[in-house]
Amino acid sequence: MLPYFGERFGNASSLHAFGRRAAAALDEARATVACAIGARSGEIVFTASGTEANNLALRGVAFAARRQGKGQHLITSAVEHQAVAATVSQLREWFGFEVTILPVDRFGMVDPDDVRRALRRDTVLVSVMLANNEVGTLQPVREIGALCRERGILFHTDAVQAPAYMPIDVSALNADLLALSAHKFYGPKGVGMLYIREGTPYMPPITGGGHERGRRPGTVNVAGAVGTAAALRMVQREQELHVARLARLRDRLINGVLERVPEVQLTGHPTQRLPNHASFVFQGVDGESLLMALDVEGFAVSTGSACSSGNPEPSPVLLAMGFTPEWAIGSLRVTLGYATTEAEVDAFLDVLPECVTRVRLALAEA
Amino acid sequence: MLPYFGERFGNASSLHAFGRRAAAALDEARATVACAIGARSGEIVFTASGTEANNLALRGVAFAARRQGKGQHLITSAVEHQAVAATVSQLREWFGFEVTILPVDRFGMVDPDDVRRALRRDTVLVSVMLANNEVGTLQPVREIGALCRERGILFHTDAVQAPAYMPIDVSALNADLLALSAHKFYGPKGVGMLYIREGTPYMPPITGGGHERGRRPGTVNVAGAVGTAAALRMVQREQELHVARLARLRDRLINGVLERVPEVQLTGHPTQRLPNHASFVFQGVDGESLLMALDVEGFAVSTGSACSSGNPEPSPVLLAMGFTPEWAIGSLRVTLGYATTEAEVDAFLDVLPECVTRVRLALAEA
Repeated sequence: MLPYFGERFGNASSLHAFGRRAAAALDEARATVACAIGARSGEIVFTASGTEANNLALRGVAFAARRQGKGQHLITSAVEHQAVAATVSQLREWFGFEVTILPVDRFGMVDPDDVRRALRRDTVLVSVMLANNEVGTLQPVREIGALCRERGILFHTDAVQAPAYMPIDVSALNADLLALSAHKFYGPKGVGMLYIREGTPYMPPITGGGHERGRRPGTVNVAGAVGTAAALRMVQREQELHVARLARLRDRLINGVLERVPEVQLTGHPTQRLPNHASFVFQGVDGESLLMALDVEGFAVSTGSACSSGNPEPSPVLLAMGFTPEWAIGSLRVTLGYATTEAEVDAFLDVLPECVTRVRLALAEA
Repeated sequence: MLPYFGERFGNASSLHAFGRRAAAALDEARATVACAIGARSGEIVFTASGTEANNLALRGVAFAARRQGKGQHLITSAVEHQAVAATVSQLREWFGFEVTILPVDRFGMVDPDDVRRALRRDTVLVSVMLANNEVGTLQPVREIGALCRERGILFHTDAVQAPAYMPIDVSALNADLLALSAHKFYGPKGVGMLYIREGTPYMPPITGGGHERGRRPGTVNVAGAVGTAAALRMVQREQELHVARLARLRDRLINGVLERVPEVQLTGHPTQRLPNHASFVFQGVDGESLLMALDVEGFAVSTGSACSSGNPEPSPVLLAMGFTPEWAIGSLRVTLGYATTEAEVDAFLDVLPECVTRVRLALAEA
């Protein structure tokens, strides 16, 4: 990325040599992203975050479809990231769209039959995520996408959590729109990507100049796009090396926690989940205190989503999966990266029980 | 910025130590931006571009005001950047807002009396830019803001072009919302800022987690914010050193062009303009060909806005100022930076006449 903050500082929209050089780098980055997910370059729009990519997908399609008189019914699941959940919610409350929220089973999984039953003649978009951020569950996206395609209804998937840990192909997933975020695969923060299948009716939710073919105006973060492409090439190259190892470490972690800590449950699907993702609820614990206790021991973990941290309410995702608020408040998400070692997992397992005990005692005394 | 791509890679929304360190850097960057424009930290929202900042301002206020039953009338000028112009246009065409577009004089300047006459009981927002990107004209923003404040109507100004070349104070400008872009003051591309005065009714046009207090969700580009703050500190420190010198160089450039090239006019105000900004229209020239001819000679210039480059239509800004399409198509914008020297200006003046002649001959032959 460095040259694009320095001697190659051009604005990719400028026509002079500095601009053209930046535009060439942006083109190459876009081609890399497109290639990585089986899309064409013209179908990739750079955004500033996965959140923005999801917003553009939902808002862009919903308003365009309504204007075309196709309807104003949206379908999504009860376990979406807030980027989708809050957007659908605003489209309903402020803009008069009708919304069906699909239930999930106790593993957080959507049943494609529920999608089938929810589809209406005026449904314009279905949005179900590929992999859940809080509980790691992989959704049957391919089946849901196929159902939508049969009926000619657009299908969007929030794939933000996935690229470092599984291959993504927009055709195999039957996706018309797909959102990604660079910092989820070792790229820079501040870069998202939206795949928009060619020909998808779309109203730009942000308007301005002709950047990104008018689909997302605003001077493009060229250095960010270049870094994103480099990170994506890295994960494509190294993913296979890591995934099997991470899945073993994840299972070691899950089994270790379930064995060593009393009154704990795994959240999310036991097998249909991200290979690097372990998540739990602990009775008599508040997740944030547990997070801080583990932080002192040198472990960086999360309760649910970093995007809603500081929010003391139990996670709506866990509630939708059937957990009581008492259990849901004690949630912990532990994710592994390419660099995580078995020794680190074992060290975590060594300190966790005492951390949980300490937090439980403090909470009981409070 | 570098550490925030490396050892300080944390997500500013994470509660663990990596996250808190990033959050502290973000807080500091936000305080720097706030301080630079006379705002409080809580009134600054980081975005991904000036375009996004303008979109959030217009959309955020327009929808919130309509929902509160305050009205749906917007006022803007005929010379706004597309980030404002296209947004107002979409709000009218797709969302039923009523819009008054204020005329400008031949220098591109809005008359505050026109604002006064356009204000209605159902006016919810007035948006007039601080400095024009294409012609450099400075608008009487302080007066317009005062008029709005008297009536209790919100006032937004697109200040993207200004920070490197003039002090900005949101109170002095009577602004309730003000948009900035980092790469316009030597910061990184991919960072914008929006000032939203505390208490301004606002609907987040992008929805998701609680980032930026829910006003602009999406994982924050921490490195970008840090770089933006550093750039802003630099321009605050060095601005005075450069502005008088640049104004002299700009005048040397303007006078040189008007003396040496036949059939040319200055565009924009002769004195009330950005100190680094010179802009012209040339008869019998198309601006893009002239840009390419100057590029070959090593000069990076623009025709109108980089954000609409590749668009062969004459600039709506120049048409609004009364230029005929024939003149408007031959537009050139030449901006100077802190590093620009007198020798460079003179070298430009030496090659420009021949470049213009060559383009005129080619166009006449075509």
